[in-house]
Amino acid sequence: MTDRLAQQMRFCLEIDQEKNIDRHTYTTEYRRENDAEHAWHMAVMAMVLHEYANEDVDLLRVIELLLVHDLVEIYAGDTFAYDEEGKKTQKERETQAADRLYAMLPDDQEQYFRGLWDEFENEQTPEARFAHTLDNFQPVMLNDATGGKLWQEAGAHLDQILERNHNTAAGSKTLWEYSYHHFIEPHVGKEIKK
Amino acid sequence: MTDRLAQQMRFCLEIDQEKNIDRHTYTTEYRRENDAEHAWHMAVMAMVLHEYANEDVDLLRVIELLLVHDLVEIYAGDTFAYDEEGKKTQKERETQAADRLYAMLPDDQEQYFRGLWDEFENEQTPEARFAHTLDNFQPVMLNDATGGKLWQEAGAHLDQILERNHNTAAGSKTLWEYSYHHFIEPHVGKEIKK
Ligand SMILES: [Ca+2]
Repeated sequence: MTDRLAQQMRFCLEIDQEKNIDRHTYTTEYRRENDAEHAWHMAVMAMVLHEYANEDVDLLRVIELLLVHDLVEIYAGDTFAYDEEGKKTQKERETQAADRLYAMLPDDQEQYFRGLWDEFENEQTPEARFAHTLDNFQPVMLNDATGGKLWQEAGAHLDQILERNHNTAAGSKTLWEYSYHHFIEPHVGKEIKK
Repeated sequence: MTDRLAQQMRFCLEIDQEKNIDRHTYTTEYRRENDAEHAWHMAVMAMVLHEYANEDVDLLRVIELLLVHDLVEIYAGDTFAYDEEGKKTQKERETQAADRLYAMLPDDQEQYFRGLWDEFENEQTPEARFAHTLDNFQPVMLNDATGGKLWQEAGAHLDQILERNHNTAAGSKTLWEYSYHHFIEPHVGKEIKK
């Protein structure tokens, strides 16, 4: 066995831990979704919905961004969208995690995976913008499908949800409008505070 | 909202149920893995390991095959690799499930997704062969990482494991040899019966 393959195999096993990182979002079975499930769900949704991206996107790149961008949470943990304290240290914790995780890979792949994470974070490409659209759209879809339970528990205000979705339309105007009218608006004044 | 988007959204929500389909495989936390986690894990492994495919592969197609090929189990359930009775009706149950699930999509996407499932099942393209390699390789990696617990519980014989892996080398000779020597062989005569 080559050193290269040994490094790659260590990484492939290490990322199994993404299945243990629970998010706050409820699945339609009313249990917490984990990061691996979230990434899978968004990747398939990208296959179905990429025609609604504002700009032409490279579907492979979108899917790669979605599949790996939460891997840093294996070491840094999930930061809840409504946790203002946690969000202050999020970038620093996640950058350290990316350094540590991607260093397991051979140099060329370390750069490739690190490049995917940087691209997602920087939101400067059509693919990164559309990936963020789905990263916002998918949990809102599940929040609506579970009767707004998460919003109610979190005491979420409409302005927090709009702030969290400030970049959703940048990747897809159509999906943001769908999200707002079909998933969010019906809960305003009920599970979502005005 | 168009009918097209309404159909697509129904499908995107329906597939959330893939997160409830448990496999027999244990994750490194010693709990059952579900189909969504399995698909995600293999898709990232395809990104890392596609250089070992016997033939040049289109990485997007490999990932698409891996992400969706188990969706039929939402209706047909998971069939355990060592359940000889269940395997007799598996093809029929899964074909009916594919008809039902993919009919939710607009016609063009119904054909596209159905085509992915057929391609995976038929194993006639380099991408389908490599996808099968990973579909065999990933659970064996986890079985080894969890001390052979699943093999021991299932009373698995080496010849069953070899039969289950009859097509692993067809997609990647390198990964089959790695799997055999690093994941399987160390357990023979212990958790795996000779
Ligand atoms: Ca996140």
